[in-house]
Amino acid sequence: MTLSSAPGKVYLFGEHAVVYGEPAVPCAIERRARVAVTERTDSKLRVQSDDLRLDGFTVEYGGPTDTHPDVDVSEQLIAAAMGYVDGAIEQVRDATGEDDVGFDVHIESDIPLGAGLGSSAAVVVAAIDAATRERGLTLETAELADRAFQTEYEVQKGEASRADTFCSATGGAVRVEGEDCRSIDAPELPFVIGFDGGAGDTGELVAGVRTLRSEYGFAADTVTAIGDLVRHGETVLEAGDVEELGRLMDVNHGLLSALGVSSRSLDAMVWAARDAGAVGAKLTGAGGGGCIVALDSTDATETALSFTPGCVDAFRATLADDGVIRHR
Amino acid sequence: MTLSSAPGKVYLFGEHAVVYGEPAVPCAIERRARVAVTERTDSKLRVQSDDLRLDGFTVEYGGPTDTHPDVDVSEQLIAAAMGYVDGAIEQVRDATGEDDVGFDVHIESDIPLGAGLGSSAAVVVAAIDAATRERGLTLETAELADRAFQTEYEVQKGEASRADTFCSATGGAVRVEGEDCRSIDAPELPFVIGFDGGAGDTGELVAGVRTLRSEYGFAADTVTAIGDLVRHGETVLEAGDVEELGRLMDVNHGLLSALGVSSRSLDAMVWAARDAGAVGAKLTGAGGGGCIVALDSTDATETALSFTPGCVDAFRATLADDGVIRHR
Repeated sequence: MTLSSAPGKVYLFGEHAVVYGEPAVPCAIERRARVAVTERTDSKLRVQSDDLRLDGFTVEYGGPTDTHPDVDVSEQLIAAAMGYVDGAIEQVRDATGEDDVGFDVHIESDIPLGAGLGSSAAVVVAAIDAATRERGLTLETAELADRAFQTEYEVQKGEASRADTFCSATGGAVRVEGEDCRSIDAPELPFVIGFDGGAGDTGELVAGVRTLRSEYGFAADTVTAIGDLVRHGETVLEAGDVEELGRLMDVNHGLLSALGVSSRSLDAMVWAARDAGAVGAKLTGAGGGGCIVALDSTDATETALSFTPGCVDAFRATLADDGVIRHR
Repeated sequence: MTLSSAPGKVYLFGEHAVVYGEPAVPCAIERRARVAVTERTDSKLRVQSDDLRLDGFTVEYGGPTDTHPDVDVSEQLIAAAMGYVDGAIEQVRDATGEDDVGFDVHIESDIPLGAGLGSSAAVVVAAIDAATRERGLTLETAELADRAFQTEYEVQKGEASRADTFCSATGGAVRVEGEDCRSIDAPELPFVIGFDGGAGDTGELVAGVRTLRSEYGFAADTVTAIGDLVRHGETVLEAGDVEELGRLMDVNHGLLSALGVSSRSLDAMVWAARDAGAVGAKLTGAGGGGCIVALDSTDATETALSFTPGCVDAFRATLADDGVIRHR
């Protein structure tokens, strides 16, 4: 059995605009997906999950062409999770040259699913890493990140960005612009996360922004404004000015709202954080529901969020310096 | 005694950006300030208000250099209201050439004060109109609007836009761009207004946007995006497409949020309206608190707002076809 883990992430700046070639800055956080992989004697894939914020499910099947089994959780979530694991194992088969190798895959994750914290990227990165190592092959981080991206790209039908998978594989703060991903320096960032218990439909949200941007010049300008904000934010990050980062997060949230990807609960959490004294707060990820991220070195924001109607979980998250960790 | 009334307004689009030469579209609404003026035998000014959303106050004084009397409402609001009436009467003295004419001025208003509905513009327009007529002079609407603007310009220390006073004087839907104000056609617009009981500090909010815009290219882009949205909105207004107007209002609200002028209660009301089925909703006016405006031809938004924590008043407002009305 081989065990790897990989972190989730928050977007400090730039989600959605990154799809159109603008830069973005995701940061890995110490919330991880742990994937244990054991080679099978047949070519089947068996996936068990103890927690993808589901009650736990076990799926055994022969491959992606199988019909999905009758289990007591959302078909859509199962299909999504299975799609990612399927894709990851396809990458493993490609990397090892072993077309019909089979695995038992056991997933544990404390990253809320589909909530903008990069749960799928973390699962894919950890799964590819563990399964290749189970077959005696340790991938370079760059190749791991790339294969994880290919997986997301296929599952998400071409709408994936390299940001999530690169950030999960390498850890730390990352600058993404088109194909170019690189690690950047970041100060201690006092992230506080609020989760509304929901999940937006990433595909639908990305498509909505695409339509808005193609129909309206002012929506295209809004995407550009996010890019300009990110370029400024990079210099602020380098200077370590947390107060200014907060101000920029507030503006970034407004620009995302203009693109139609915020929600009632996300806005309620953002305001709870700001009123509690957070230096800034914004939605993170695709939006429509899920998580907000705030910066507050005190306990006030976490407390305020925990009393905010519509917030089901509030927690502090430190920047994860390590990306993928090879546990055993 | 001479009585004039003038309507308040909502901004369908473009507040804040209008300060930088972008177009804006305010619409007069059937909520009015009524000002009754009686000439005095001395040169004093006596102002009585039954409702500026205060409990009512009476102030008698010799002019702007007097110290303010000890009354049981916010000094700041008294000072603000008195400043507008003072300024209006100065315009009347200028228009009539009677430097030392005095008036008793009685104000009744059902427009929430400082809440983004143009209460001060309505009071100024009605006061100038009633007082000039009390002295036998009936101003052309254009001159009335201009003198009301001059009053606001002085009281607001140069930050006033012509939009509020022109709209209040002429009624209907208005297009404002810099010095150029004109009436435009508009379909039946099912305005619903939510009021949080508060008032933002217009000067502070305008100054905040000015700073943001001068410091950050992306904030300047955001102002430009609002202008582009308004230019598109004008064609939509002409076409009478209320659904599309709603979509644009939603985007306009997000862009205003990015400029830092929304608030927790404004966002809560905007989401209540959208969730209730409004075709769109946005803050109106300077923001920071005050009012939102939504479009909904059903009762759902008004009902939803009346149950929204933080909303103290919700009401339907029809487009006011008439601006200043000369009652007697």
